[in-house]
Amino acid sequence: MDLTLSLDTASAKSLQAQIFDQVREIILDGQLGAGMALPPSRLLAERLQVSRNTVLTAYERLAAEGYVKARGTAGLFVERIPPDSLLLIQRGSRIKTNGPIPDASSEPLLCFAGSPGGGSDRPELDFWVGRSDVESFPLRIWRRIINRLLARETTYLTDYCDPAGLPELRAAIGTHLRRARGVSVAEDQIIVTTGGQEALNVVFNLLRSHTRQLCIENPCYLGASLIFNATNLTVHPIPVDRDGLQTDLLPRVRGSLLYVTPSHQFPTGATMPLALRLALLRWAEETDSYVIEDDYDSDFRYDGPPLTALAGLDGGRRVFYVGTFSKSVGAGLRLGFATVPRMFWDEARLLKARMSNGQAWLEQAALAAFIEEGHFDRHLRKLRQVYKARRDCLVEALRRSFDEPELLGWESGLHLVWRLPRGFPSAREVQLMARECDVGVYALSSGAAYDFDADAPDDVLVFGYSSLAEPMIEAAVSKLRLMLEGGGATSGR
Amino acid sequence: MDLTLSLDTASAKSLQAQIFDQVREIILDGQLGAGMALPPSRLLAERLQVSRNTVLTAYERLAAEGYVKARGTAGLFVERIPPDSLLLIQRGSRIKTNGPIPDASSEPLLCFAGSPGGGSDRPELDFWVGRSDVESFPLRIWRRIINRLLARETTYLTDYCDPAGLPELRAAIGTHLRRARGVSVAEDQIIVTTGGQEALNVVFNLLRSHTRQLCIENPCYLGASLIFNATNLTVHPIPVDRDGLQTDLLPRVRGSLLYVTPSHQFPTGATMPLALRLALLRWAEETDSYVIEDDYDSDFRYDGPPLTALAGLDGGRRVFYVGTFSKSVGAGLRLGFATVPRMFWDEARLLKARMSNGQAWLEQAALAAFIEEGHFDRHLRKLRQVYKARRDCLVEALRRSFDEPELLGWESGLHLVWRLPRGFPSAREVQLMARECDVGVYALSSGAAYDFDADAPDDVLVFGYSSLAEPMIEAAVSKLRLMLEGGGATSGR
Repeated sequence: MDLTLSLDTASAKSLQAQIFDQVREIILDGQLGAGMALPPSRLLAERLQVSRNTVLTAYERLAAEGYVKARGTAGLFVERIPPDSLLLIQRGSRIKTNGPIPDASSEPLLCFAGSPGGGSDRPELDFWVGRSDVESFPLRIWRRIINRLLARETTYLTDYCDPAGLPELRAAIGTHLRRARGVSVAEDQIIVTTGGQEALNVVFNLLRSHTRQLCIENPCYLGASLIFNATNLTVHPIPVDRDGLQTDLLPRVRGSLLYVTPSHQFPTGATMPLALRLALLRWAEETDSYVIEDDYDSDFRYDGPPLTALAGLDGGRRVFYVGTFSKSVGAGLRLGFATVPRMFWDEARLLKARMSNGQAWLEQAALAAFIEEGHFDRHLRKLRQVYKARRDCLVEALRRSFDEPELLGWESGLHLVWRLPRGFPSAREVQLMARECDVGVYALSSGAAYDFDADAPDDVLVFGYSSLAEPMIEAAVSKLRLMLEGGGATSGR
Repeated sequence: MDLTLSLDTASAKSLQAQIFDQVREIILDGQLGAGMALPPSRLLAERLQVSRNTVLTAYERLAAEGYVKARGTAGLFVERIPPDSLLLIQRGSRIKTNGPIPDASSEPLLCFAGSPGGGSDRPELDFWVGRSDVESFPLRIWRRIINRLLARETTYLTDYCDPAGLPELRAAIGTHLRRARGVSVAEDQIIVTTGGQEALNVVFNLLRSHTRQLCIENPCYLGASLIFNATNLTVHPIPVDRDGLQTDLLPRVRGSLLYVTPSHQFPTGATMPLALRLALLRWAEETDSYVIEDDYDSDFRYDGPPLTALAGLDGGRRVFYVGTFSKSVGAGLRLGFATVPRMFWDEARLLKARMSNGQAWLEQAALAAFIEEGHFDRHLRKLRQVYKARRDCLVEALRRSFDEPELLGWESGLHLVWRLPRGFPSAREVQLMARECDVGVYALSSGAAYDFDADAPDDVLVFGYSSLAEPMIEAAVSKLRLMLEGGGATSGR
């Protein structure tokens, strides 16, 4: 089939993003049905007079999001998309996705366990989840921005700010979300919060009175489980498999509230394919439910373009998007945000006023300048390189040291998990043994995760690799190998 | 009677504080009964070999807190203190009160109404409550501290901090509370929060499950009413008179939770005398209830030494103390705190982790240094001078312009109220008329206050004077005089 695309070279949107959007539109419109082939990238590139790489990048993204699938060397073919899901997808001008990546994150047990990362009681080689690389913090630029701000202003130091957050920062977040995550929200749909944790609370408190029962991934992020478990509402844990939350197990109860991490499930690292994302949105529509999408580390996708967020597919109707700058800039800033559909805005702003009445001005103003002046995008590109190298190093070291280790969730984010083979000690035992060798690896229960099933097999080890340089990763894996070879691996489960 | 005091000149505690503590102890022990005279200050000064001013200051404070009362020129006589209240007062080494003043505050409607103080839609001569003086912000010192911190550290920018707050800041707050408010709490009884509002939420959420009904001053601070009104619990408003909350109207329901502002009732400005404070604590003890003491502006007492906080009298058993740095340093820092009895500590820390997982590091570290290096005490002394001059100017201008205006709550804090005489327009009408003349004065309902009685007389105007220099105060009152003389005062209520 011939694709009729029209590219606008004057547009702020990149050519690859225009191709992605328009081909997606054609697929969603049904003009290009399931099983039909995309034109070869070379042909399309010639016709559009763009480089073949531009087309390839757009195609890769379509594949990554599940719209098309490669069949060997035969090319790319359109996947079957449940027809009744199509209605849910916001299209055309409302979707803008032409940039790199976003921001977000979920706070680890670190804080809950009360062991600050820099504390003296941490192991030397520590795979704690969700820690940023200290050395990569853009200290020089940050200092310059802060000096500039403090040279100019004192009003904002002594006055109360808008409880929803500094308008400049909300605008910067909105722009970034549109470009990087396909989430189209205005400044007045964003609430700036004390990290991702307060953002979860804002959304939860906002929806509490609309909610009959809570649904949550299992296993899940500890911070979310703490909020859900503190309520009187029924909590319905939904098992997770290699495609993330099992949408077919979602209860058909009207007025549910679902917490989900589709980009990089915490803790298992699974990425939810498009078809399941659409099924999830359809479920929300049919049961009149709301969804909290915690996009905690989608800034970091190493082997392809980022996936459009659920909130981008949904167009801001049933999905509340929660993000954080804890991973992408620094947890010590305590800045995150939630997006809300427009009809919830006034209530959300008043709620944030009631909860904590706005954020510190200096961090907000500095972050707004950091984003607006392009430092944030550059910083993310740098971090992605640093973290990709660490991830590669860890994956290779584990594969070299152990027999075909089952590694999951390594495509993106700041951590991966290793499902230990039969015959190995339990994850908790490995954690304790490793601690003796000054290596920090973590069973789910210690790794900022929570399992509603107390009898779940304890066979998953979490490795947060972002704060460890390659030589330390090599050293840590060597120690693990020696330790587990030394008889530990025979204690059996 | 001869007072046996022993002063320790090597002590870190000032001589006047030692005298205050020891005389108070003697009174509370019953050695110096009701109606008995204190020795003349001159005599005691000679005997103790201290300056007469030292003794006078201690005596003034004993009078201010209601332990003694002057009878004309005859001297100071011990007041009657309800005997069963004595058990409640924590004494001896547990009380240390030798310094100046504290910190605290409650956030005004500003934020809730969404009109940042610096916004363009504020009147020029704006008596908005709770605004600090922009010019007085110690910008030079603050910048120096922040530069020093950013030159040294990046770990704290990228890592999670203790959810309870930076240990250095908690230690500094503890020292300050002991010296200034007689509140003896350790570092691990303090939770650093996003301003006073989050502190109220921490305490409220902590006590929610222990609580059968809520009691609150009426009228009260809007931020507290928002929290209380958002629950399903019964809210029992307790009327306020010139001595603050009417303790004899407290319901004798076991397991109540009371919110109170005894130092400077918000909004009426009443100061609760010692006997009523003790009655309140006795009520809490007898009904197994807890108390939230919001000490929002007790840093600013102009005409005498500060009163010991309820939490100081109670010794950390039933009173949860809530403070803020919004008034004493700047609302834009968003830093406040709550103190909790030791048995609540672990729960409070986990709760804060669940709510927002700690505060931004930079503000916390800067404030800790600001307090530890003595800048905070100096800053408070300066602010007190500035604000006292403004208060004096406002009181004089109002007295000069109107016929014996009934002014309340001017002894301390950053605002006073004027109960309008009969025949004047309602406070809301005056507010609207004044707005036409570019003057901001506020009826209770617009002034960050809340009245549970919708039919309460609307005859109280709130004047926050701390952000207006004297010439502006003079100009504003002149405008009010012209406006109210010009026939407005005859529209009648």
